[in-house]
Amino acid sequence: MSRSPGRKQENHKISRELFVLTYGALVAQLCKDYEKDEDVNACLDRMGYSIGIRLIDDFLARSAVKKCRSYSETADMIAQVAFKMYLGITPSVSCSSATGNEFSLILDKNPLVDFVEELPAERASLCYCNLLCGVIRGALEMVHLAAEVSFLQDRLKGDAVTEIGITFLRKPEDRKHRRNK
Amino acid sequence: MSRSPGRKQENHKISRELFVLTYGALVAQLCKDYEKDEDVNACLDRMGYSIGIRLIDDFLARSAVKKCRSYSETADMIAQVAFKMYLGITPSVSCSSATGNEFSLILDKNPLVDFVEELPAERASLCYCNLLCGVIRGALEMVHLAAEVSFLQDRLKGDAVTEIGITFLRKPEDRKHRRNK
Repeated sequence: MSRSPGRKQENHKISRELFVLTYGALVAQLCKDYEKDEDVNACLDRMGYSIGIRLIDDFLARSAVKKCRSYSETADMIAQVAFKMYLGITPSVSCSSATGNEFSLILDKNPLVDFVEELPAERASLCYCNLLCGVIRGALEMVHLAAEVSFLQDRLKGDAVTEIGITFLRKPEDRKHRRNK
Repeated sequence: MSRSPGRKQENHKISRELFVLTYGALVAQLCKDYEKDEDVNACLDRMGYSIGIRLIDDFLARSAVKKCRSYSETADMIAQVAFKMYLGITPSVSCSSATGNEFSLILDKNPLVDFVEELPAERASLCYCNLLCGVIRGALEMVHLAAEVSFLQDRLKGDAVTEIGITFLRKPEDRKHRRNK
């Protein structure tokens, strides 16, 4: 990376169509490489994870956000700042557990599938956008938040919306700090 | 594609870092799949071609450009409108033949390699960004312009700039029309 602080902001923005089609080529290649949908999904998740652990630095530098004080704040940050920045959309967030560590990002529209008509019948278990889950998981891990991330609903599979579930696996450190005050 | 004319322009724009890292994952996967650099390059070119023949509709709809009357105009259009739109950069253009059908796009900066340090020694013949050549070739073919497109220089290989060569293979139809006037 050869980045200078004075670089114009506009240079960060690109048209998303090239990205969406390139992502489609990646998924198609993995479908050639792996017979089982589960293996494609796992590979997309791994790739996303590797991307997430690198993307988090870019995100923190450019968003200049402060440390989140709760899972709820973190989920909102992912939806309202990160999704907006990287995919140009803002999913809605809902908390789906009494323990307050499970959240859903609801995507009315998923730009990654803009050019996808529907999944082929023989690829019914494919999580086409599974890279996103890996990205979120990897990025969260780099800010010391272990999480499980997976698609709970997918419009490509006939669901009414696309829903990404995030389950935080332990309490963030700042809860402990607050208790000590 | 479910696109409505009223959709906000801002929705087309995304941050390019996610794209750049995803592209890196694609190239890495192809390097796993193919031992020979030439096979990776050919695969990237094929993928790019498939993308280009789909992307051209999006480009024509959103750029609202008029038909180019010469190779020179076409090369300028690729550099100043298409590259700007899809990658956020504007390469400079030079005509590199007396016959006026060979052009070079000079990229002082190549956003696609932002996160790439250098090519591994065993991948010395890899054209990392070869997808772009395929995209240009595919898009041109859809507007009835056959062309050969390839990297002539690459900063990843130690060259001073990155240079994409475009050789148009036959005269555009409007030359014939002009002759008949």
